[in-house]
Amino acid sequence: MNYGMIFYIIGWILNIEGAFLFLPLIVSGIYREGKEAMSIALTALVCLVIGFIITRFKPKEKTLYAKEGLVIVALSWIVLSIFGMLPFVFSGAIPSVVDALFETVSGFTTTGASILSDVEAMGKSLLFWRSFTHWIGGMGVLVFLMAILPLSGGNNMYLMKVESTGPSVGKLVPKIRDTAFLLYSMYFALTLVEIILLLCAGMHWFDSVTIAMGTAGTGGFGVLNSSVGSYSAFAQVVITIFMIMFGVNFSLYHLVVKGRIKDVFKSAEFRVYISIILIAIAIITVDIRQMFGSISEALRHAGFQVGSIITTTGFSTTDFDLWPELSKSILVILMFVGACAGSTGGGIKVSRLIILFKTMLKELKVITHPRVVKKVKMDGKTVEHEVVRSVNVYLVSFFAIFIVSLLIVSADGHDFTTNFTSVAATINNIGPGLEAVGPTKNFSDFSDVSKLVFVFDMLAGRLELFPMLILLLPSTWKKNR
Amino acid sequence: MNYGMIFYIIGWILNIEGAFLFLPLIVSGIYREGKEAMSIALTALVCLVIGFIITRFKPKEKTLYAKEGLVIVALSWIVLSIFGMLPFVFSGAIPSVVDALFETVSGFTTTGASILSDVEAMGKSLLFWRSFTHWIGGMGVLVFLMAILPLSGGNNMYLMKVESTGPSVGKLVPKIRDTAFLLYSMYFALTLVEIILLLCAGMHWFDSVTIAMGTAGTGGFGVLNSSVGSYSAFAQVVITIFMIMFGVNFSLYHLVVKGRIKDVFKSAEFRVYISIILIAIAIITVDIRQMFGSISEALRHAGFQVGSIITTTGFSTTDFDLWPELSKSILVILMFVGACAGSTGGGIKVSRLIILFKTMLKELKVITHPRVVKKVKMDGKTVEHEVVRSVNVYLVSFFAIFIVSLLIVSADGHDFTTNFTSVAATINNIGPGLEAVGPTKNFSDFSDVSKLVFVFDMLAGRLELFPMLILLLPSTWKKNR
Repeated sequence: MNYGMIFYIIGWILNIEGAFLFLPLIVSGIYREGKEAMSIALTALVCLVIGFIITRFKPKEKTLYAKEGLVIVALSWIVLSIFGMLPFVFSGAIPSVVDALFETVSGFTTTGASILSDVEAMGKSLLFWRSFTHWIGGMGVLVFLMAILPLSGGNNMYLMKVESTGPSVGKLVPKIRDTAFLLYSMYFALTLVEIILLLCAGMHWFDSVTIAMGTAGTGGFGVLNSSVGSYSAFAQVVITIFMIMFGVNFSLYHLVVKGRIKDVFKSAEFRVYISIILIAIAIITVDIRQMFGSISEALRHAGFQVGSIITTTGFSTTDFDLWPELSKSILVILMFVGACAGSTGGGIKVSRLIILFKTMLKELKVITHPRVVKKVKMDGKTVEHEVVRSVNVYLVSFFAIFIVSLLIVSADGHDFTTNFTSVAATINNIGPGLEAVGPTKNFSDFSDVSKLVFVFDMLAGRLELFPMLILLLPSTWKKNR
Repeated sequence: MNYGMIFYIIGWILNIEGAFLFLPLIVSGIYREGKEAMSIALTALVCLVIGFIITRFKPKEKTLYAKEGLVIVALSWIVLSIFGMLPFVFSGAIPSVVDALFETVSGFTTTGASILSDVEAMGKSLLFWRSFTHWIGGMGVLVFLMAILPLSGGNNMYLMKVESTGPSVGKLVPKIRDTAFLLYSMYFALTLVEIILLLCAGMHWFDSVTIAMGTAGTGGFGVLNSSVGSYSAFAQVVITIFMIMFGVNFSLYHLVVKGRIKDVFKSAEFRVYISIILIAIAIITVDIRQMFGSISEALRHAGFQVGSIITTTGFSTTDFDLWPELSKSILVILMFVGACAGSTGGGIKVSRLIILFKTMLKELKVITHPRVVKKVKMDGKTVEHEVVRSVNVYLVSFFAIFIVSLLIVSADGHDFTTNFTSVAATINNIGPGLEAVGPTKNFSDFSDVSKLVFVFDMLAGRLELFPMLILLLPSTWKKNR
């Protein structure tokens, strides 16, 4: 294990976090929040000092192997969260360390589940930091690092692979650094467009920026107790569209930039993703029709909630826990479906489900026609055996983590629906679930043990399971490889 | 597709069903149930006449391929159920055809889910038939057919493979017919021992026989409204032990018969199965301790319920829907675990879970140490790649069926826990679930559409998914293979 390189990169992560903290610091200046400013500044100082010291020790051996890539990403996210929670702890806004960790991990992993019952009581600068963690976590902090830091050696592809979502990751352009830069540029541009549109919709600049960051990272932290329910219908529609857009593979935006718009629609994942959204909206609109004044209002709420859940954002315009069972079941299933690979969204991902479904059909055909040799294809290309295998292992790991979590959490005594949807909402990085973790409720009632389970699940979900599982594997830490 | 052979075997299935119906006919004689006797006799006549006619047309081509094996088993079970429900319909005991089909499929698939709210109102002979369907379905009707009918051609191994449970099926002895005969002999002997022990426990002969048949098939239909809750503690302990015994791979009993008792404990599946049971009983006993007068009473109920659920039998001694959430979560998870391969139990099966878990660990190690080549081993032997692949496809198919079922069923408007556990209880062939399908409730409240979904799920669960899925595949019915 290349410990030198691991420390070096984690040092840089702390430097970046320290730098990022200047943004909420500015907000605390605007709103003249003294206590908050102090705690943010102190955290930034701690990050930069420790980061500065660590990065003085440049590693001699820069080569990274797959194992180190996984370990670095997992540890980076844990360190990021531990330091990221300090402003909440120092300011006394979230006195419990476990709660603060939960809230911060929920932020970085773009989950959006909260332990706060009164969001509006928190200082603006801390709310800003909370939403900013979504934005950082959405595209990934190591991708950001790669965009700005010239890490030598071609092996940093491993880091990018681990932090990006989906069963297989391709580079947009030959160089990794350029790819990372391109991704963040498109990410920043789309966020900016959303901010402008939300400002046009009459929203306050603070709300526009924080909600846009929450949308971009498919996070879901709001700055009002009503989530986004009290914004105008126009604003809600803008958020709906952008949630769905941030759930799309960013490589498709690269195609758009290069003028290859036709090719976007050739993507099987994109077509299935849009189809699922449209079908779900149609069924739910009919199902909830009677609860709202007009069909258009029902359509707006259905569209918002489907977009919010499938992209694993987790905003809500209304308490969908009161919706009919069919609509709720559809939402619970969409929690697992998740967004597209290469997006900022969580869940199992549409492309994985396509591969699983095609493999299933193929194998059933092989059973009935043993002599026929078939291969699973997607977008005209054969899906490599390695990818199929890794998707299968992903599914098994997913349910293994899910079941163990469900068992531990159920010891708190909540009902089955609460337990099931709370685990689903955290491992899939959604935010709200049903019943006691419904959109108007929060996660504060759970025991510290359960909250730490959720912390693990949120990190596992965001990093697509393997990095967190590998941390637990004794063989990872054995000397000889 | 060899339609001649398909018809021929289904004809024999009807002959066997007609013959089997003589047993409940005798019971109707004992209890002097005129209406019931008439309807049973009429059904037997219909079966035998149609069976006789069909089996006159001996097929010229006797070769069976894998596809035909799957289709024959699926169709056999459907035909078996459609004719098996006639006594309930003819006698007016279950007036709705959908309800009668549900009840009969629930019987043959050894599910034990019922639409009856008052079991005791039904005639004894029909109750006997209901429990007898468990016994027939447990070991399988095609296995029975193979034990008595000299089907020429070596290809009937396919039929046995399809009807037996678990990821891979081995023959006990070189000849299939001998294997089938051996299986049924051990099955019969074990059932007989249980009947005798239950009689010793002071149970009425009718209850002893029906409950023993329900235990043997891991079915779960009772003959009292209290399931088995009103029998003596001794009887309940006997049932507990036999439920767990019928959840064991029957090849292990063959080892016992041959005196190789040591080899039984070498089976990884057996060890894991027993370990899961013991751990689950321990946790639940502690968790429910306060609800009962003594620790031994809590232990008895915990043991009974764990045995009942993991073997997918579904009997209950108490309303476990009132137990604490942790215990309920454990039971829900055990529903999916299921019994051992090659047993009469349902669920995913312990051996499949072992293979999935080992594959997961192996793949995680491959990610961290790409140069190491590893193979998944079980009981000292390498698990073939084909088996691993088929287990993966099984898991995907399982969740695909589960999700579609959950969606359709949720349109009825029951709560999430009810919907989730009702699908789990049917596809895993358990019987009761939680909430509205808890042990003191039944499935009568669901719409006919939902009931038909459950019928599909019960058959799919019993036949381990592929036969039922292949019936739906258009390519199965295309002429050229």
